[in-house]
Amino acid sequence: MNPTPGSPDAALTAAAEAARTAYARARAAHDRATLAEAVAEGADGTPTMRIDRIVEDAVLRALEPHHVNILSEESGWIDKGSEVSLVIDPLDGSANGAAGVPLTAFAGAVAIAGEFTEAYTVWLDTGRSWWAHREVPTPYRTSGRTELAGAALSLLRPHTSVPGPAAAWWAAASRAARVRILSTTCLEAALVAEGAIDAFADACSDTHRLVDLAAAAVMVTRAGGAVLDVRGRPLEFDTDLTRRWSGVVAATPQLGRELAETLRTAADTATAGS
Amino acid sequence: MNPTPGSPDAALTAAAEAARTAYARARAAHDRATLAEAVAEGADGTPTMRIDRIVEDAVLRALEPHHVNILSEESGWIDKGSEVSLVIDPLDGSANGAAGVPLTAFAGAVAIAGEFTEAYTVWLDTGRSWWAHREVPTPYRTSGRTELAGAALSLLRPHTSVPGPAAAWWAAASRAARVRILSTTCLEAALVAEGAIDAFADACSDTHRLVDLAAAAVMVTRAGGAVLDVRGRPLEFDTDLTRRWSGVVAATPQLGRELAETLRTAADTATAGS
Repeated sequence: MNPTPGSPDAALTAAAEAARTAYARARAAHDRATLAEAVAEGADGTPTMRIDRIVEDAVLRALEPHHVNILSEESGWIDKGSEVSLVIDPLDGSANGAAGVPLTAFAGAVAIAGEFTEAYTVWLDTGRSWWAHREVPTPYRTSGRTELAGAALSLLRPHTSVPGPAAAWWAAASRAARVRILSTTCLEAALVAEGAIDAFADACSDTHRLVDLAAAAVMVTRAGGAVLDVRGRPLEFDTDLTRRWSGVVAATPQLGRELAETLRTAADTATAGS
Repeated sequence: MNPTPGSPDAALTAAAEAARTAYARARAAHDRATLAEAVAEGADGTPTMRIDRIVEDAVLRALEPHHVNILSEESGWIDKGSEVSLVIDPLDGSANGAAGVPLTAFAGAVAIAGEFTEAYTVWLDTGRSWWAHREVPTPYRTSGRTELAGAALSLLRPHTSVPGPAAAWWAAASRAARVRILSTTCLEAALVAEGAIDAFADACSDTHRLVDLAAAAVMVTRAGGAVLDVRGRPLEFDTDLTRRWSGVVAATPQLGRELAETLRTAADTATAGS
């Protein structure tokens, strides 16, 4: 057995540092249109922006000496036959990063024999970081809020042209006291973990992949909160990046359940009526 | 005549530095509930949070040696009989600041004989700053976008229970390619000035006061953009802080007019139908 760790896994920190350096260099070297250009289709089935490719390439290079398996947004599953797997979003908030909105994150989680053990999130624009391990006491505490009415909520942007998700978004926004859209799931999850916001959700658009939610699952749970899916799909280690969730990241299990129920009911009602 | 300035007005920078120090100390000294507590009613007619009071008090103290008139969010108009007036939002994004969402700004504009001449915005959580003077070339250029369809838009949060503003919010969000809610008008205006987002608006909720828009009016206009009001009310220096606008801050005058028209038409249609 390893002793209980007191600092982030060396592979995770190497990956995060590489992401931060590559992100800064990409921003300095290219204009917005070049960074946002679709250069490939990612393993998750969505277009890869050039800035995604640059940051992920740097992360993969940095991880070569570490001999760990990697599940990453653009490249998908890289099997090194290790017990240890890293689930990584090298550049969360790609659209922010390409445009120059300073809200982007590296987020990574370690899975050992299929179980998530620790998570590390770095705000790439400032260097601020959050680390949590399931066997180590954490300084992060969620707000402890249990009710959606009056909550400070973050959401993915509304999908206004799709009746179910559109109705779900509006229903949640109508019950919350505050609504934000920062367009960076991993930073928003870190803010839930430390209690700055009460909850974050994908309003039934099935946008989230495991790389968006793995770090949250470790960190927010450790801080007293909950990470679940609107439709109850289990959030588990899986090497198939085409799987999707509508993630709910909440200060407490009660708030998570109420938010998921609010979203699901509104979406189903709108879909049945359309 | 003064020579053409090459750096921000000394009173503005003194005020910004005081705001940054007071904000950091307040965050370190108090918990969220204490910072968010309403301690008075501000000159603009809305409740003053303790964190607003702390930051504004520090700014006013720092400005005492400068003998300028001050229009500030909580205290209102302080007349020192000077030709020079500062229009200041000591802590834009108060709710972010009280909760720990790291998106808050100091924003100030200088008015000389009633005409705005320069603006200075500081992101209090990072120290990053933006300065513009109407007689000095600026490095900031807006994105140049002229159409709402496909734009990257920031909005104040939706007022879901008020039919006009609710409809206006949804109409604008439905035409844009991206929507963000950062809950800090002054930072969002700076992002429009440098081209990271295409436009920002208050969707007909008449939330904006002069202190929210004065810096934007100087900086975004200088960068090629436009600042207007959804209802065409002129944005001008005025010592009455109860005046309200629904501000539109856009990369170009064309985009500003289209966004204002979209918001106004949707609001008026919803109001006529309710």
